[in-house]
Amino acid sequence: MQNNPNNAIGVFDSGVGGLTVVRALMERLPFENIIYFGDTARVPYGVKSVETISHYTREIAEFLLQKEVKLLIIACNTMASVASQVVKDLSPVPVLDVIDAGALGAIAATTRRQVGVIGTPTTINSNAYARAIHQYEPDVRIFSQACPLFVPLVEEGWLDHQVTRLTAQEYLKPVLAQDVDTLVLGCTHYPLLKPLLQEVAGPGVKLVDSAEAMAEETAALLGELKLANPQRGRPDYQFYVTDVPLRFQTIGERFLGRTLSNVHVVKW
Amino acid sequence: MQNNPNNAIGVFDSGVGGLTVVRALMERLPFENIIYFGDTARVPYGVKSVETISHYTREIAEFLLQKEVKLLIIACNTMASVASQVVKDLSPVPVLDVIDAGALGAIAATTRRQVGVIGTPTTINSNAYARAIHQYEPDVRIFSQACPLFVPLVEEGWLDHQVTRLTAQEYLKPVLAQDVDTLVLGCTHYPLLKPLLQEVAGPGVKLVDSAEAMAEETAALLGELKLANPQRGRPDYQFYVTDVPLRFQTIGERFLGRTLSNVHVVKW
Repeated sequence: MQNNPNNAIGVFDSGVGGLTVVRALMERLPFENIIYFGDTARVPYGVKSVETISHYTREIAEFLLQKEVKLLIIACNTMASVASQVVKDLSPVPVLDVIDAGALGAIAATTRRQVGVIGTPTTINSNAYARAIHQYEPDVRIFSQACPLFVPLVEEGWLDHQVTRLTAQEYLKPVLAQDVDTLVLGCTHYPLLKPLLQEVAGPGVKLVDSAEAMAEETAALLGELKLANPQRGRPDYQFYVTDVPLRFQTIGERFLGRTLSNVHVVKW
Repeated sequence: MQNNPNNAIGVFDSGVGGLTVVRALMERLPFENIIYFGDTARVPYGVKSVETISHYTREIAEFLLQKEVKLLIIACNTMASVASQVVKDLSPVPVLDVIDAGALGAIAATTRRQVGVIGTPTTINSNAYARAIHQYEPDVRIFSQACPLFVPLVEEGWLDHQVTRLTAQEYLKPVLAQDVDTLVLGCTHYPLLKPLLQEVAGPGVKLVDSAEAMAEETAALLGELKLANPQRGRPDYQFYVTDVPLRFQTIGERFLGRTLSNVHVVKW
């Protein structure tokens, strides 16, 4: 029975980035069991065709549904922008995605309806955040900026480094020049840069962390559907990956903010 | 007939990086026809298993051999480090690889037998440069340093940027502290950073650019085997890729140093 409140939440991403969503879920919903799937053998998805991404997305969603998850969370901007309908069409359980969560977070945060969105080149080029925000609020003005160096900087662990600060100043300059009041961190890697980005953006700009926005949306949905886990024991966390790349443990733990155990390798 | 001097040189890489080798070949051997293959749909190879890399490498080598190339150049550090024997075993024409070329270049350049090697984490972890250098000269001391941010910085085009300079200072510090006299640029992206790296390393360190080293080795081999193209017309350049990713044209032209035309997409 898949809508059993005791079942786990299924979270998936093309790699390790989605672990920031898991971290936010662990903090916001400390009694929920979580199963994570990271397609580390086939990352990055950004350069692949829509057909390929849809095919991979379906495979992962089916894998998690077989584990009887009660909710599916697409914690990957690329999959969310091109294949979220594929997941919704096949899933008997509710599906949330990180772009929708970020869009709702931006709408809740903005006061002057001037919103900046930063992400990888693939996400920014897909225009998915702008579409999602405009679906709810057509008159919000959106200023987007691709920040291709942020993912490698986060993976290098230079979270409070002068190189990262200079890079952020350069990337954010055109967005800040548009006098935005809200900045959406449209990539699952970016929550780790939040203190530095807040410093560069200044106190007048609210940062919308899509991992936190997702945890809020999840909490609301579980409450609404009466699917929150009533058990108050130590929750179970399981991590499935398709490969264990170089520095996986180090990077994964940085994203998760705690020890990464129960890692299983799925060979496809 | 594959050992016809009029035939093209086949050069391959997992992505666009190998275009720096093509550029060096164009400059050093201006009458040679070149066929390039970049597996842009499946890049990066660094995170894949040896079996998968060997399988892909074989596919690409066979594709180029069907085009009747007279020489195969493995312009990819990952393929060179794990699958160069696979190519040598199947190829009826000579095979050169970028690691061997860089190793020979380092041996020719070093005076005090203190050599630094920089590359991606995968290349550095494979220890392939050290093995190749020690095969020729066992008493050379080698100091390696992975520089994971250099590839994204090059792809961003920040070739003479303060961010890149600070990053290089940080990465090179431990290698320079070992008083190396030679530094091997063990990644096909790095030749674009050569002026900046020379500035950071200082005038006392000779940089070995593996693209140039490869062009030298190719020129020597073609002379030796009497395979140099005797024709003095405008050579033919053909580029095969498995996908045309975002910013491919811009990045490709930066690597090649000229307009990128005759690009064909191969669907596998």
